[in-house]
Amino acid sequence: MDSSWQQIAADKKSHQLDSVPKEWISSAQSLPSEKTLNVIDFPQESNVLSALDREITESSVASLLSNLASSKWSSVQVTTSFYKRAIVAHQLTNCLTEIFVPRSLARARELDEYLEKTGTVVGALHGLPISLKDQISIKNIESTIGYVSWIGQFAKQNSVLVDILESLGAVPFVKTNVPQTLMWAETFNHVFGRTSNPYNRSLTSGGSSGGEGALIALKGSPLGVGSDIGGSIRIPAGYCGLYGFRPSYNRIPYAGCVNTMEGGDSILSVLGPLSNTLDGIKIFFKAVMSKEPWLKDPMVIRKRWSEEEYNLADHGNGKNLCFAIMWDNGVVVPDPPVRRGLEITKAALLAAGHRVIDWKPYKQAEITKNINDIWTAAAVEDFKRAAAPTGEPIITSMALQQDTEPLVFHPSDGGISAFELWQLQKKKRDLRQEHLNRWEETVNQTGTGRPVDAIICPMAPHTAPPHGLNKIPQYTLPWNLLDYPALIIPVSQVDQELDAKQPREDFYTADDRANYEQYDPATYENAPISIQVVGRTGEEEATIAMSEIIDQALKGAQSQP
Amino acid sequence: MDSSWQQIAADKKSHQLDSVPKEWISSAQSLPSEKTLNVIDFPQESNVLSALDREITESSVASLLSNLASSKWSSVQVTTSFYKRAIVAHQLTNCLTEIFVPRSLARARELDEYLEKTGTVVGALHGLPISLKDQISIKNIESTIGYVSWIGQFAKQNSVLVDILESLGAVPFVKTNVPQTLMWAETFNHVFGRTSNPYNRSLTSGGSSGGEGALIALKGSPLGVGSDIGGSIRIPAGYCGLYGFRPSYNRIPYAGCVNTMEGGDSILSVLGPLSNTLDGIKIFFKAVMSKEPWLKDPMVIRKRWSEEEYNLADHGNGKNLCFAIMWDNGVVVPDPPVRRGLEITKAALLAAGHRVIDWKPYKQAEITKNINDIWTAAAVEDFKRAAAPTGEPIITSMALQQDTEPLVFHPSDGGISAFELWQLQKKKRDLRQEHLNRWEETVNQTGTGRPVDAIICPMAPHTAPPHGLNKIPQYTLPWNLLDYPALIIPVSQVDQELDAKQPREDFYTADDRANYEQYDPATYENAPISIQVVGRTGEEEATIAMSEIIDQALKGAQSQP
Repeated sequence: MDSSWQQIAADKKSHQLDSVPKEWISSAQSLPSEKTLNVIDFPQESNVLSALDREITESSVASLLSNLASSKWSSVQVTTSFYKRAIVAHQLTNCLTEIFVPRSLARARELDEYLEKTGTVVGALHGLPISLKDQISIKNIESTIGYVSWIGQFAKQNSVLVDILESLGAVPFVKTNVPQTLMWAETFNHVFGRTSNPYNRSLTSGGSSGGEGALIALKGSPLGVGSDIGGSIRIPAGYCGLYGFRPSYNRIPYAGCVNTMEGGDSILSVLGPLSNTLDGIKIFFKAVMSKEPWLKDPMVIRKRWSEEEYNLADHGNGKNLCFAIMWDNGVVVPDPPVRRGLEITKAALLAAGHRVIDWKPYKQAEITKNINDIWTAAAVEDFKRAAAPTGEPIITSMALQQDTEPLVFHPSDGGISAFELWQLQKKKRDLRQEHLNRWEETVNQTGTGRPVDAIICPMAPHTAPPHGLNKIPQYTLPWNLLDYPALIIPVSQVDQELDAKQPREDFYTADDRANYEQYDPATYENAPISIQVVGRTGEEEATIAMSEIIDQALKGAQSQP
Repeated sequence: MDSSWQQIAADKKSHQLDSVPKEWISSAQSLPSEKTLNVIDFPQESNVLSALDREITESSVASLLSNLASSKWSSVQVTTSFYKRAIVAHQLTNCLTEIFVPRSLARARELDEYLEKTGTVVGALHGLPISLKDQISIKNIESTIGYVSWIGQFAKQNSVLVDILESLGAVPFVKTNVPQTLMWAETFNHVFGRTSNPYNRSLTSGGSSGGEGALIALKGSPLGVGSDIGGSIRIPAGYCGLYGFRPSYNRIPYAGCVNTMEGGDSILSVLGPLSNTLDGIKIFFKAVMSKEPWLKDPMVIRKRWSEEEYNLADHGNGKNLCFAIMWDNGVVVPDPPVRRGLEITKAALLAAGHRVIDWKPYKQAEITKNINDIWTAAAVEDFKRAAAPTGEPIITSMALQQDTEPLVFHPSDGGISAFELWQLQKKKRDLRQEHLNRWEETVNQTGTGRPVDAIICPMAPHTAPPHGLNKIPQYTLPWNLLDYPALIIPVSQVDQELDAKQPREDFYTADDRANYEQYDPATYENAPISIQVVGRTGEEEATIAMSEIIDQALKGAQSQP
């Protein structure tokens, strides 16, 4: 009762692997040394995994589901394979929070028995292990989200999404790490520590769904669920070379999740999938929709998966699309690898017969400021109250040495009045209207008779940066305010020659200069390069479909001589 | 410039009828005396109207559209007929704000010429005059919403809905009266004065869309648009014997309207239709949806009109529905006529082969308190700033003598912090979740295999009360917080014998006792009796369809011997 917060945290952490069979845990000497930065291929070499484990964990979501449904692989087998690899991933990057092996395997066994007995699958995700960001509640399991003060709070019931995933036959099997407060684009907290990027462990895996990023990149999970209020799905997806999807507000049920800043009804956090393959994104979204989540979460929009919209009925049936690339946001110019990712994409789309025009950024800095102002209206009070019970400090920097300036939030900022908040929200409404008008007006530039079909832009001005150096996520935040669905597609990796630093003289802003000065391809060695595909509010189906077109174009271009 | 607010208001009011042809204005002696309370049938006798004017203004929306499309009646003719009757209605009840005859007739003429030339209608509402609550902006016309301080602010552009209505061929022809601040369930302001109920002018027409209520009841408009954040469409509809529909948040575009309490993103005001016939409600909603409003207003949900949902695919295709009647809310027991309206409905539904069970009210008082707390978070500051430029007082009572206690709002209440507001909004989320769970659980009581198809309940504990005596609208507010679509259906009128006062001893609350003591059928003579049909979030199509079923059952029962 009177333990220090450090003691409570250490005690919790010391029991983290209690449910893991010893043979799944790699010995210290079998693991890469701390100096080995790139560990992305290590699990394939790990002797914890059998050949079958490797085959299974390298499979796409569609392939897994097919082999599960045909009983080629049992759910116990698939869950075990991913669990073993998840533990390896955790030892490499510290990506997990809650681990509950017996419970998951028992559920997998039930599913296997059901299939054997009835000859039919329980649902569209039958037998598939799924990882969940720590905040997604599973009955009788903790959701600390990195607050020492929340240790010991076991969920009284599943979140609605977990109920739905289980009804679809999925097997939740691990929960994943987050930053304290959830409001950082990196992943570090006093309970579970820091998550690293498996492509280069001196870099962040991003945040706040940073545990998901590292875990899935290492193929320790075929499909994970994160949340995104300012980039928290897209940033880990982008930094870790994954597909990650931020749907519009209120399509995936959020009810029953633990969260910070609850009651802030204006800029909504949303749940969404991360996966190594794009099929995982679509399968997840369509499956969840099939369960009529609006009957379980009052916030969810009553709208079924639309095959018509997926077939791009509003976008010329997917022929001769016109994409617009926002090369930079007018505030910070992206680093060479990020620019190269966009150039690769443009060339691939042109080669595939689509049009590509430029997107002129519109009030991006103002939008970013507005969203931050709305959050800081009451964030500090919220954080303080959450941390108060144990007296744990609120983290004000993600640096390795916790002594730098606060980044995203400034906990010294006081709160504002409800009236002042309303004025910010009114401003937000106007920004959304203006941006919508802007998009509609592009009908005059596309040559297709339609406005731009989707925007393509950077996910950040840099690839995954060193720990503590992630700035405000200004390339993801605006789409949260505008409520545009956005999907991350991996394109390449940092190349020391192709991405050499170029001389620059003129800078938009001090941040632009700082970002330029920070760039050195050696710092970012092996970091994944991604693009962000941005659709219009409510166009989840179309955004997935257009992302598939872009992904195919990229793959087609790569396969050219 | 230095005029007093009284002078500014009087000047505005003195020009209200400037654009009206003299022959449309009834002489004082031809109008009923002030002592004549029931004026509902007066327009039919008025010598301002021709026989054709009477025939046209007595027609249903469907019939008007059909006769407009076939060129039996021109839009100039139809608009003129309604305009003339609207002016009579205005002279009887003071229901109008902005009147712009030449502009509307010019538009009607354009539509007539288009039809003559092309043989086709402009859209689904071709030629139909539509009345608009004062806050719905029409380019170059004022939207004062009763603030003297806002006189002279001419709209720079149409609200999105007006653009859509015009593209559908509708003819906006008058704007209608509201209470200052819009946050009252009665209609009175310093600019335009008070609107009365045409069934009994000692009673209120309700509010805040109270001008619409009086105008449409007198058949001065076939279809009007109001707004509803706590009952502002349903209360005038119910008090004036109309159909009125509050859709869920963000289906009908609100962008570009003038409003109070802007930026309060939690409990949203919505626009919706009022009409003398239920066909008007469906025609309006379906027509607006057909114009893809999500491409014009960023808040609108991307969801087309669903014929499948209208056909009640989720409700057993409309056969053997199970309705649940909430006879009272556990706070204030409805007066005899209101109870009788529910009994008539129950009998009619049973006779039509549907099931009817009881709905146990759930936390109705707590829901009402939460919604009020959220509004008052910053309402007073909002109101004060709006009124400040001219120094006009904020109205704190709707009584004929402005000296009673404030009713809905307490302008003495101070604002709260953003953090406190978030806590209220978190509470709201929980209330919504609990209520959804409650509804789902009714699957065990219906005998249909489905949860209750719709709730039927009072719109208020009383019929239209005397001016100044409308209490907090506790029978409409909860559905705004829960975001349930709700449609008002007229059932009957107060009957001095059938609705005699009954002895009662026990009361839920002091409000319950006060309401009981206030009741006397003589006070409420001729007041319309209505019911409220409540669907589930996003079920606009199904709620309209079920209301049609209920309306048919009621009409079928009336036609029985």
